[in-house]
Amino acid sequence: MMELTVDLGARSYPIYIGQGIIDNIGAFFEKHGLGKNSPHLVVTDEHVAEHHLPRVLGLLGEAGYKVSPYTVNAGEKSKSLAVLEDVVGVALDAGLDRKSSIIALGGGVVGDLAGFVAASYMRGIRFVQIPTTILAHDSSVGGKVAVNHPKAKNIIGAFHQPEMVLYDTSTLQTLPPRDVRAGLSEMIKHGLIWDSEFTAWCEDNADKLVGLDPEALQYGLYQGCKVKSIVVSQDEKENDLRAILNLGHTIGHALEAVAGYNELVHGEAISIGMVGAAKLAVQLGYSEDIYTVTKRILQKFGLPTRCPEHLDTDRIMEAMMHDKKFSGGNMVYIVPTAIGKVEIRKDVKPEWVRNIVEQLKRED
Amino acid sequence: MMELTVDLGARSYPIYIGQGIIDNIGAFFEKHGLGKNSPHLVVTDEHVAEHHLPRVLGLLGEAGYKVSPYTVNAGEKSKSLAVLEDVVGVALDAGLDRKSSIIALGGGVVGDLAGFVAASYMRGIRFVQIPTTILAHDSSVGGKVAVNHPKAKNIIGAFHQPEMVLYDTSTLQTLPPRDVRAGLSEMIKHGLIWDSEFTAWCEDNADKLVGLDPEALQYGLYQGCKVKSIVVSQDEKENDLRAILNLGHTIGHALEAVAGYNELVHGEAISIGMVGAAKLAVQLGYSEDIYTVTKRILQKFGLPTRCPEHLDTDRIMEAMMHDKKFSGGNMVYIVPTAIGKVEIRKDVKPEWVRNIVEQLKRED
Ligand SMILES: NC(=O)c1ccc[n+]([C@@H]2O[C@H](COP(=O)([O-])OP(=O)(O)OC[C@H]3O[C@@H](n4cnc5c(N)ncnc54)[C@H](O)[C@@H]3O)[C@@H](O)[C@H]2O)c1
Ligand SMILES: NC(=O)c1ccc[n+]([C@@H]2O[C@H](COP(=O)([O-])OP(=O)(O)OC[C@H]3O[C@@H](n4cnc5c(N)ncnc54)[C@H](O)[C@@H]3O)[C@@H](O)[C@H]2O)c1
Ligand SMILES: [Zn+2]
Ligand SMILES: [Zn+2]
Repeated sequence: MMELTVDLGARSYPIYIGQGIIDNIGAFFEKHGLGKNSPHLVVTDEHVAEHHLPRVLGLLGEAGYKVSPYTVNAGEKSKSLAVLEDVVGVALDAGLDRKSSIIALGGGVVGDLAGFVAASYMRGIRFVQIPTTILAHDSSVGGKVAVNHPKAKNIIGAFHQPEMVLYDTSTLQTLPPRDVRAGLSEMIKHGLIWDSEFTAWCEDNADKLVGLDPEALQYGLYQGCKVKSIVVSQDEKENDLRAILNLGHTIGHALEAVAGYNELVHGEAISIGMVGAAKLAVQLGYSEDIYTVTKRILQKFGLPTRCPEHLDTDRIMEAMMHDKKFSGGNMVYIVPTAIGKVEIRKDVKPEWVRNIVEQLKRED
Repeated sequence: MMELTVDLGARSYPIYIGQGIIDNIGAFFEKHGLGKNSPHLVVTDEHVAEHHLPRVLGLLGEAGYKVSPYTVNAGEKSKSLAVLEDVVGVALDAGLDRKSSIIALGGGVVGDLAGFVAASYMRGIRFVQIPTTILAHDSSVGGKVAVNHPKAKNIIGAFHQPEMVLYDTSTLQTLPPRDVRAGLSEMIKHGLIWDSEFTAWCEDNADKLVGLDPEALQYGLYQGCKVKSIVVSQDEKENDLRAILNLGHTIGHALEAVAGYNELVHGEAISIGMVGAAKLAVQLGYSEDIYTVTKRILQKFGLPTRCPEHLDTDRIMEAMMHDKKFSGGNMVYIVPTAIGKVEIRKDVKPEWVRNIVEQLKRED
């Protein structure tokens, strides 16, 4: 098992990462002072429930905890105020009080939803994360929790740090291959923005990671969480540095918005976006290697590096404008300056980005 | 004008209280660094909008602020997740960003709703309170914001401190008499828990306060806010001391829950509850004066001191049990030990309280 502390002063918390660590869930709960007199609520989704809920409920029950489960539909639609109201109703029926906790068992959707329930139920109770996707190594660091509004994603939320994160790599074995790759895309991003050695390690271990090798996963998730945690510790409330986490996301979000249903998942869209950022870097005069290496790695992971041609460039640009990453007419853009290094540029002209999008449609 | 600082470290904020101070709203906004480049949103309700919205919008517009209004239905029902979703939709359409603010123009309902929008929109933006009820002197101190769940009041919320509170006593002139008295009930409570001199002043100035005399209101609201602010500064997250603010609320909440629609408003219910607490004090051996003075003051304000006989005592007791102010079978109860002093008792037996409720039905 590896352990990492997300350093946020009084709100610091540990992330435990390892194969089979859920087996000791009772001991982890005791160590963190979660009470046996107050009931707790596990929030999960239908896919995760099928594979992992009985184990978590069983072990917590054996350890003497009173725990109720609540299973939401899988997918982004569950990140809504309506589902939040349902979860709160269940929490009330189960008698959750100020000493109770909400336990998120699932990916980023369940984490964001359950985290916002924990942030707002009785104005804030404790929160435990048990991530079951690779992407969740990203969402379990930083305390950003939220639900969506019909008009905007993640717009209603809070900063609410968990008590601890229990990252059991054995839960990842049931993850569908597409979600595996999509999650690894964010792991690669964490290398690209901060750590060239880790980037090289990712490239060398692509097959192991895609094949869900427990040792490789443990190390990769640890390093990915670590990069995010360093960035977040320096900028908890997203004032400046945290923006570097958006490498690939300017184009990525726009592609997600314009693509058809299920055509591009988030990790795929930002994979294309990272190639775009690398191309921009080269045009701005940085080393050609940035582009070559970025693209080569993403391809080793089976991630897309080309923008689907049928996506309309005008609509992609509109979606970007809507995303409001602007500062006085120019775009705020995360540009790599080397492998493992990025800068926040505020002088990027929308025309340059438009040009990149056009080029991305002709990538091989 | 009087000014008071709610002392909460980095989250401290001022309350400005005075007749006509809204006339200088532009200057207050500038002083507090609210930006003119980002749009702001005024949330109000239909009654308040009719009397005071044009003035606020006009003055902010003249001062160069971009401000959109949103008017909700008057009443507790607007404190819901559904209305929250509406307000967020309007905020998105108006283009509110991280530098925008939400301005609550109204009573406690608007304050709690708009405050929770401010707490959760983009994970927290700035919040300005312009209270227009007397009760709101209570809700504008302490940063508790929330909406209701169909199964429980104020259960989904946050602690979110405003930038400033602009308390213009001229807005109170349009308040219906019943809301005037109900708000004064909380003002009297603030005297009873903390300040015997202020209690005496309230009694001496009952007619002026009920008659909405601006000078008396300014002083009374200032002192009421001050007591609450001292308590809240010592216990921001409601761990212990803050409980004393619940004087009269154990019985009060139960009466509200059991009474018919519009039979007892909150301030009336806690008025009866404060008489109950005073009776309990006497039975516990404290001075008979506590009861005599408490009751005399409340009657001077035209507030009820007797429990409506038709309210079923069993149902009142059930509502109290549901309220969960318990500690190992006994009730947690705020008991006055003198005028201006209370203690938190954890040894009060439900039978004693039942007995008090029965007696309250026979008060004159
Ligand atoms: N809070 C943050 O900082 C942050 C950061 C990044 C992303 N996010 C959010 O995360 C969400 C995406 O996260 P995600 O990709 O984990 O999505 P997800 O939670 O929807 O999981 C993806 C799919 O995998 C299934 N699944 C999860 N774990 C499984 C397992 N072990 N076995 C089998 N199936 C499993 C889920 O049911 C779902 O169908 C988005 O809503 C995004 O906004 C949040
Ligand atoms: N956050 C806190 O700490 C806290 C503390 C106490 C109460 N509260 C909440 O406050 C709410 C009750 O507050 P309230 O009594 O101010 O209720 P309210 O906001 O509903 O106002 C009472 C009535 O007066 C009307 N009104 C308000 N100002 C007016 C004016 N100037 N002229 C004419 N009409 C006016 C309103 O439209 C409403 O009909 C409850 O929801 C309660 O939970 C919160
Ligand atoms: Zn992402
Ligand atoms: Zn009250």
